[in-house]
Amino acid sequence: MIIDVHGHYTTAPPALGAWRDLQVAALQQPEQRPDPRSLRISDDEIRDTIERNQLAKMRERGSDLTLFSPRASFMAHHIGDFRTSSDWAAICNELCARVSQLYPQHFVPVAMLPQSPGVDPATCIPELERCVRDYGCVGLNLNPDPSGGHWNSPPLTDRHWYPIYEKMVEYDIPAMVHVSTSCKACFHTTGAHYINADTTAFMQLLQGDLFADFPTLKFLIPHGGGAAPYHWGRYRGLAQELKKPLLQQHLLGNVFFDTCVYHQPGIDLLTRVLPVANILFASEMIGAVRGIDPETGHAYDDTKRFVLATPHLNEADRFQVFEGNARRVFPRLDATLKAQGR
Amino acid sequence: MIIDVHGHYTTAPPALGAWRDLQVAALQQPEQRPDPRSLRISDDEIRDTIERNQLAKMRERGSDLTLFSPRASFMAHHIGDFRTSSDWAAICNELCARVSQLYPQHFVPVAMLPQSPGVDPATCIPELERCVRDYGCVGLNLNPDPSGGHWNSPPLTDRHWYPIYEKMVEYDIPAMVHVSTSCKACFHTTGAHYINADTTAFMQLLQGDLFADFPTLKFLIPHGGGAAPYHWGRYRGLAQELKKPLLQQHLLGNVFFDTCVYHQPGIDLLTRVLPVANILFASEMIGAVRGIDPETGHAYDDTKRFVLATPHLNEADRFQVFEGNARRVFPRLDATLKAQGR
Repeated sequence: MIIDVHGHYTTAPPALGAWRDLQVAALQQPEQRPDPRSLRISDDEIRDTIERNQLAKMRERGSDLTLFSPRASFMAHHIGDFRTSSDWAAICNELCARVSQLYPQHFVPVAMLPQSPGVDPATCIPELERCVRDYGCVGLNLNPDPSGGHWNSPPLTDRHWYPIYEKMVEYDIPAMVHVSTSCKACFHTTGAHYINADTTAFMQLLQGDLFADFPTLKFLIPHGGGAAPYHWGRYRGLAQELKKPLLQQHLLGNVFFDTCVYHQPGIDLLTRVLPVANILFASEMIGAVRGIDPETGHAYDDTKRFVLATPHLNEADRFQVFEGNARRVFPRLDATLKAQGR
Repeated sequence: MIIDVHGHYTTAPPALGAWRDLQVAALQQPEQRPDPRSLRISDDEIRDTIERNQLAKMRERGSDLTLFSPRASFMAHHIGDFRTSSDWAAICNELCARVSQLYPQHFVPVAMLPQSPGVDPATCIPELERCVRDYGCVGLNLNPDPSGGHWNSPPLTDRHWYPIYEKMVEYDIPAMVHVSTSCKACFHTTGAHYINADTTAFMQLLQGDLFADFPTLKFLIPHGGGAAPYHWGRYRGLAQELKKPLLQQHLLGNVFFDTCVYHQPGIDLLTRVLPVANILFASEMIGAVRGIDPETGHAYDDTKRFVLATPHLNEADRFQVFEGNARRVFPRLDATLKAQGR
């Protein structure tokens, strides 16, 4: 089985964006706020957007199942207040749940949270509970910077985030650390802010001792871990200067990396530097980079080709990257699959 | 010859830090402001700090010459106002100039600028002129975020920065894009802010068309280009989506990368992905990562070993990385060396 642990519903029907536009337009006039129940999207519309896009490409490329969450750049937690994010997250999560109900063999949902800048993350718990209990979400996306580039939240190791972590431990669900749109001209969303956030989160975890408090907490750092694997020597050296244990002991029982790195040399580095147990297959298809690479003739985000071609993985390793690690890191995914007889 | 294009005076005599402490303490009481001329550091003190540290390691590792600039994390452009940065840059630049006067065979100076948040970069020109004219500086360090992590300056492609670029073109000097200390708890200075800034700057240049306005302008992105080479496929794909030319045409005539990547797999990726002409040897010794790597028994920042060992460079390539590219990218360095008969 080939499990892609990082996919977003980037192709949702236009009605979703139209509802969001109404919501944003009404920010200063609460009486104009659209009712979440006013959004009408039919199963056929969902089927159409999925079958022509994600599912078509999954079939073409030969992946079986995608962990599917709301579009990351549209989370835009910086817009409005908690109520804004709460309505928006509820709608987006429900839509991904419907995708997974329509295609239970192909999509398993992952929750976005109704984060809002300066608001206690504990306010996200009811939505997270609903997503796990009612929708069968097997993980969540945690935005370390709900401000959209102002970075005014405490580091991920701060007690500020502990309510989320307690719930993650209770449910045994991992969080992918994933920011949303950048509001700052200096940070291109997918070319700088995403990658910087991955690097920043990794370094926050390195600096802290979070896993002493939460030994079973698990984070997935997307986009191949940002800059971390490329600068693994720097991070090993910084850990040493900070008197931390070796990264293997300090972080690698709890921190995992996806394969959203869009060229062969990058995947070769990732698979050379990180233990196989820490690498999970993903493509973020359909996401930030949608073109065909003229150097290869294949899609940039067809990362399966790179994983198959890299010389650093044998057949057993590839099984771990494609399936085994995902089942271990997402125990509720494994349970869902087993319930399906897979 | 082995030229290290990225070294800072991280070991300056304690009197320098003491003067800075006085300056910072006097921020609210201008009448207490220390006179730059009150700083007294003898040639012997400079010799002592250099010979026991940078020069000792250069001899040990076999590098010949270092482009030497003030300590990056101490630039701290966010402290005080323009006058604060101006006095501080003047002192720091003079000190590096004295190092190069004492050891002209081994150190060539690179200027820091008296940047200050919200202040027109044109105010930096007099100090830059002085550094090139009086000290023989062959390049400069440009901080894309003088706020220290708040990132409230426009992107490097904005006209805001053009006064600096006009002077760079006039003098034919490149800028290394290098931030300073992070004021924000979320960004570890050397583990996140530095690397993020490299990635951010690269993406800003990719998004813009700066080199249409300044065809001879040159930037060096330190720390191996942040995350850019590891995500080269992503950046090629984003350039394609943004309807930019191929990166080779769009950026690689003007953007260069150093080898401050502290493990063999990272250097192997860098030299596999980037053309040899765009890679300049550097170590940032003595800098962020000072320890001995237990996996190799050698210093993390002894990057010469990685450049020598990488399978992607032949002898002619290594000459370019160690010397040829530095002479080409820093024409004033080449002139200085030729005047020395080298």
